[in-house]
Amino acid sequence: MKEYVVGIDIGGTNSVFGFVDNKGNCIHKDSIETQLFTNPVEFVATISEKIQKQLVNLPDTIIKGIGIGAPNGNFYNGTIEFAPNLKWKGIVNLTKMFIKHFHTDVLLTNDANAAAIGEMIYGNAKGMKDFILITLGTGVGSGIVVNGKMVYGHDGFAGEIGHVIVYPEGRMCGCGRKGCLEAYCSAKGIKKTYLNFVSGEGKTNEVPEADITPHYIYEKAKLGDALALKTYEYTGNILGLALANSVAYTSPEAIFLFGGIANAGEMLFEPIRKSFEDNLLNIYKDKIKILPSRLKENDAAILGAASLIWNKISNESEK
Amino acid sequence: MKEYVVGIDIGGTNSVFGFVDNKGNCIHKDSIETQLFTNPVEFVATISEKIQKQLVNLPDTIIKGIGIGAPNGNFYNGTIEFAPNLKWKGIVNLTKMFIKHFHTDVLLTNDANAAAIGEMIYGNAKGMKDFILITLGTGVGSGIVVNGKMVYGHDGFAGEIGHVIVYPEGRMCGCGRKGCLEAYCSAKGIKKTYLNFVSGEGKTNEVPEADITPHYIYEKAKLGDALALKTYEYTGNILGLALANSVAYTSPEAIFLFGGIANAGEMLFEPIRKSFEDNLLNIYKDKIKILPSRLKENDAAILGAASLIWNKISNESEK
Repeated sequence: MKEYVVGIDIGGTNSVFGFVDNKGNCIHKDSIETQLFTNPVEFVATISEKIQKQLVNLPDTIIKGIGIGAPNGNFYNGTIEFAPNLKWKGIVNLTKMFIKHFHTDVLLTNDANAAAIGEMIYGNAKGMKDFILITLGTGVGSGIVVNGKMVYGHDGFAGEIGHVIVYPEGRMCGCGRKGCLEAYCSAKGIKKTYLNFVSGEGKTNEVPEADITPHYIYEKAKLGDALALKTYEYTGNILGLALANSVAYTSPEAIFLFGGIANAGEMLFEPIRKSFEDNLLNIYKDKIKILPSRLKENDAAILGAASLIWNKISNESEK
Repeated sequence: MKEYVVGIDIGGTNSVFGFVDNKGNCIHKDSIETQLFTNPVEFVATISEKIQKQLVNLPDTIIKGIGIGAPNGNFYNGTIEFAPNLKWKGIVNLTKMFIKHFHTDVLLTNDANAAAIGEMIYGNAKGMKDFILITLGTGVGSGIVVNGKMVYGHDGFAGEIGHVIVYPEGRMCGCGRKGCLEAYCSAKGIKKTYLNFVSGEGKTNEVPEADITPHYIYEKAKLGDALALKTYEYTGNILGLALANSVAYTSPEAIFLFGGIANAGEMLFEPIRKSFEDNLLNIYKDKIKILPSRLKENDAAILGAASLIWNKISNESEK
């Protein structure tokens, strides 16, 4: 009898799901448009129906549970709380809604925490007890693992390294404060850095501003564009400093970078590593690895979500 | 039969020890001068002899173990590693040396971690699962507790919040880098702030520079001295910012301030709390307590050290 976990990744635009085994194989993926639903009850009913339909194709299967990665997900309460990019306002108990449909274990956490657990179960962090994962995307998120366990904190909201103030009185952040890591190293932040460099040189952009993305800047940098290269160096410098500061909290074995922006490879990793070592306290030097995530990109979010349940099962069997 | 733990606090000048029961009562305290010993083997032999002498006064007692708080103490290895304020150079396996004399459990960690465990076992953090303790003294140290367990990290050196860079390119720190929290909020840092304010106003000090301590500044502030009051506000502002950043890592229920400088009370706590709330990410606002440590000051270091063993016993009985 084959065992699967349903992994669901809820995003502002789309939500994707799939059936994931304990080796990280993901089958029967499907998705629905999150933004079509103003009522979370209808959203859960619709995606549950789609999952049920797929289950018909899996007659000899046991479903061990449902893992959900969601913006502003609270692991303790199984709720999504005040997510700015979703149409559901306030506190939404999504876990309870899914249990009504499936009567199985349902665990929910934010997408960065899910990615970190995914990395531990299926990726480069396998066997590691202490590590940090940073997601670089629309925002900058993080998941912190200490002694083999995800750090959720007193309220379930631990691990917001994207909102650590790196430069007091620095660049305005979407959160309303100034100088957060996210203001510099998110997609928006990197774009802003590039635009600053372009206008600082008195130049104009070759494409409409809306088309300038980290991917565009990456392609320019590959062609040797000085300002694009400078953008990656600037971004890496700041990330390196922020990661060096992070080490002083939980002293991890490694730090993983996850998400499209991290695909820039050495162009980004080289300045990060240099700034990281330069800014580390002596006792930490030359022993912490900065690595890319190894989760297969297309499935990463679903794998991360599903790993919540596989991780629980693995912890229970250790007891 | 009464049960005790020997708590030993190793300082650069003196080392103190005492016998501590599981309620936090500390008896038969004694001390030796650490700085007299260039050889750690002789140091351990001498303090062990003193402990043995006291044991004669405690005939009906079981010693459950020895807990040690020491600068640069590594919990995993039981070693003191490259402690700048001790005459013993390199890596010293103090735990092994004590076991030779007493054949009982010996645990060692740095003084700030010991203080945090002490706070959890005997103090204001009793029953708390997630908190941070900051020691304000010659240096700025910290102990981080997550889910009821001390965070030691991959290498045993987690929790160096004093060496998080708060202001990139800021004030020179004793560690050789710039802008660390310790450069502003240690005894030396506070003195520097006060002296900067005095010279900035074109004034001269009323006492020799060597006599200017946080206690002196505190006494002046109590009498309404504007520059002394400004010093506390400046220090509190920076601490508040650094603590707000710290919350984004482990989302604690409370943060405790420990050590002589924290005795300044509301003069320090008020600007800290204001700056803390101002700098917190929205989701954390109005739910984290900033509190003074409750360990009796004279015994605090010994209690912290002893609590290493009592904490181990309590964890074992939970299993």
